[in-house]
Amino acid sequence: MAKIALKSVTLQGKNAEIRQKDILIEGNRFVRICESLAPQDLDGAEVVDCSRFAVLPAFYNGHTHAAMTLLRGYADDMPLQKWLQEYIWPFEAKLCGDDIEIACRLAVLEMIKSGTVFFADMYWHRERTIKVVEEMGIRASVGVTFAESLMSPEAIEKNFEFLAAHTGESERVRLAVAPHSVYTVGENMLKRCAEFARAEGYGVHIHLSETLQELKDCEKQYGCSPVRLLDRAGMLDENLAAAHCVHLSDSDLKALVDSGTTAVLNPCSNLKLASGIPPIDRLLNAGAKVAMGTDGASSNNNLDMHEEMKLAALLAKVQGGAETLPAREVLDMATVNTARAYGIADAGEIREGALADCLLVRLDDERMTPCHDLVSNWVYAADSNCIDSVICNGKFVMRGRHVDGEEEIKEAARACAKRLANS
Amino acid sequence: MAKIALKSVTLQGKNAEIRQKDILIEGNRFVRICESLAPQDLDGAEVVDCSRFAVLPAFYNGHTHAAMTLLRGYADDMPLQKWLQEYIWPFEAKLCGDDIEIACRLAVLEMIKSGTVFFADMYWHRERTIKVVEEMGIRASVGVTFAESLMSPEAIEKNFEFLAAHTGESERVRLAVAPHSVYTVGENMLKRCAEFARAEGYGVHIHLSETLQELKDCEKQYGCSPVRLLDRAGMLDENLAAAHCVHLSDSDLKALVDSGTTAVLNPCSNLKLASGIPPIDRLLNAGAKVAMGTDGASSNNNLDMHEEMKLAALLAKVQGGAETLPAREVLDMATVNTARAYGIADAGEIREGALADCLLVRLDDERMTPCHDLVSNWVYAADSNCIDSVICNGKFVMRGRHVDGEEEIKEAARACAKRLANS
Repeated sequence: MAKIALKSVTLQGKNAEIRQKDILIEGNRFVRICESLAPQDLDGAEVVDCSRFAVLPAFYNGHTHAAMTLLRGYADDMPLQKWLQEYIWPFEAKLCGDDIEIACRLAVLEMIKSGTVFFADMYWHRERTIKVVEEMGIRASVGVTFAESLMSPEAIEKNFEFLAAHTGESERVRLAVAPHSVYTVGENMLKRCAEFARAEGYGVHIHLSETLQELKDCEKQYGCSPVRLLDRAGMLDENLAAAHCVHLSDSDLKALVDSGTTAVLNPCSNLKLASGIPPIDRLLNAGAKVAMGTDGASSNNNLDMHEEMKLAALLAKVQGGAETLPAREVLDMATVNTARAYGIADAGEIREGALADCLLVRLDDERMTPCHDLVSNWVYAADSNCIDSVICNGKFVMRGRHVDGEEEIKEAARACAKRLANS
Repeated sequence: MAKIALKSVTLQGKNAEIRQKDILIEGNRFVRICESLAPQDLDGAEVVDCSRFAVLPAFYNGHTHAAMTLLRGYADDMPLQKWLQEYIWPFEAKLCGDDIEIACRLAVLEMIKSGTVFFADMYWHRERTIKVVEEMGIRASVGVTFAESLMSPEAIEKNFEFLAAHTGESERVRLAVAPHSVYTVGENMLKRCAEFARAEGYGVHIHLSETLQELKDCEKQYGCSPVRLLDRAGMLDENLAAAHCVHLSDSDLKALVDSGTTAVLNPCSNLKLASGIPPIDRLLNAGAKVAMGTDGASSNNNLDMHEEMKLAALLAKVQGGAETLPAREVLDMATVNTARAYGIADAGEIREGALADCLLVRLDDERMTPCHDLVSNWVYAADSNCIDSVICNGKFVMRGRHVDGEEEIKEAARACAKRLANS
């Protein structure tokens, strides 16, 4: 089994004490964290001098549309309906499987470079997404997207067949049932998705309560809020990851908490599209499970979980006071909480036995200087450029800020976007 | 006169067209921007191949306390009064001139690396700040700080003498009259500062309407808002840069607009300290002059104007709709508007005749890929790591992400912070 020994890496414990330790990775797990690894631990291991680095948990991105990197900067600063109808949808209509594969590679490259080792995707041509994730060495929950208003009944049935066969699942790739939203999937289909997911052991990933228009339309069609509609459809439970959750009544909030549903916040996208500010403080006070994602690059316009994490902390404080959502807690939201929301129970933390996903962060960066508090520096002062290397599943996917094949990936994306914009 | 020729650099015009051009810098100005420089333009010039780069205006940081980098991460996630009284003030009380010089160097290093070539400072030991700015090649407005509640009458008079002699002013360094705030400077001293500044041709830099407590205390003491108090003191005018402006009544807003005062926004600090969300949309709708700053590293916790710029754009949109504060306008706030707020009329833009301050930004970064819109990518998708080089006043202050002496600067800051934290 492959072994990596991280020698003299800086860690911060729960009590805020900053110390150097050694970490041994065997296979895809952290197996030992101690003062100094013994000679037999180092036997056959690749020994990495980490005296310049801190180790921090890698990011888990709980909601995105990876292939939308091709639309980065294609349309901004306009109302939602105009943005969707005149720009985003016409561009997306041109995308074929090859384009989506190229776009996904660019997305995974950007995620790795900003310290993300997992993403929960919701898009089309899932087989291309799976291929790219397998090739590039990170993890994903690939949502199989249901949108009745955009798909034929045959395509819907093919989705269920794809899921029933557990097509493409592996050590690093999971599938999820991904009904797009309450405005593209009817109540009966929501019920069927919920029942199917439970029977097959899948998690469910959906857009929920993102805009006031969604609430208004749901009220008109169903006489209840989107959260209540999911409740009626039997979809609220511990295996539901509900992206956005911007507009929640107290009763909605209680339903999420009681059911163990995770709210996956995407504040950058919500602000940029003027959907609203997610009620982070109310979610925390109610005891809700809260995770984080970036949404797609067309409404963010990047996939940087570090930016998202800092923004969530800032918004929570202005909502609830400066002591709300301290650095350690918001880091958990962007790492371990998001992992758990997608059923990965033993990841997102630096501890013995956990999956070996982590970041080596440059302590000598000016933003990490001085270092009164490592986690504070990481959350509030650093940016993703402070990351030197990224380990996923016990293997380096970035080293010294280099990712294999990155120039080719960017060149292909540039050519593809140019062709599509001019077609 | 020194000449630099930037060959084949990518620019985006006002009409969003993206083109490659050549730029000639002579002395400290852009002298020619054209399709292709003539041989005589290149004669004696350093020719820089910029085919991989876009040129964008460098940032002007309109409000900070540079030396507070030493307190980065020293105290977070706590209410303002506890933060100030138990942590920030006791730490600051230990700082001597040498410490402040070390801290300023770290701040200027961080600013250069994140694309900032000017900062408006308000702190102590201004002669040390001036020294560092002169040495490191950027610009500053060094505020001479008045705080009656913290200073002796003799120290106040020395401030006026220092200013009357225009001590330390140079091509890149200006002084400003910097009454700290309405809660540390009384009405008579505010009047004196305003009159003195006008007589001596200085700008004024103050904290204004940052917290609700400030408004409450001002109302109690003076029977009016902080903005109205400055109006009474004759301080509101085109030469006033008012930092924060979080809490403004419609009447306050009108007074700022009518007087030509610039509001210098620091949203990251305001959110982190839970002071409030600055009313960006209302300021813009009222036609106010709006600039930007980072505040000090103890409440941000970095000096990255790019982060500040994106945050301002996001907040403006969620306040006023997705079309509010488009990318080009928020970039102006962080560059040309801030330069003008501090009396630098011909800077912050890439145009013939302007001061030669600019960034060379890597077009081949994954966050700049694809490039449907250069300015959108820069504002919403990039981070400061996309900056390859920084030019200030016609000279490179960073090249290929290297700043002269950076390792020594960081090492000195680490040692200094450690000594202070343990003393």
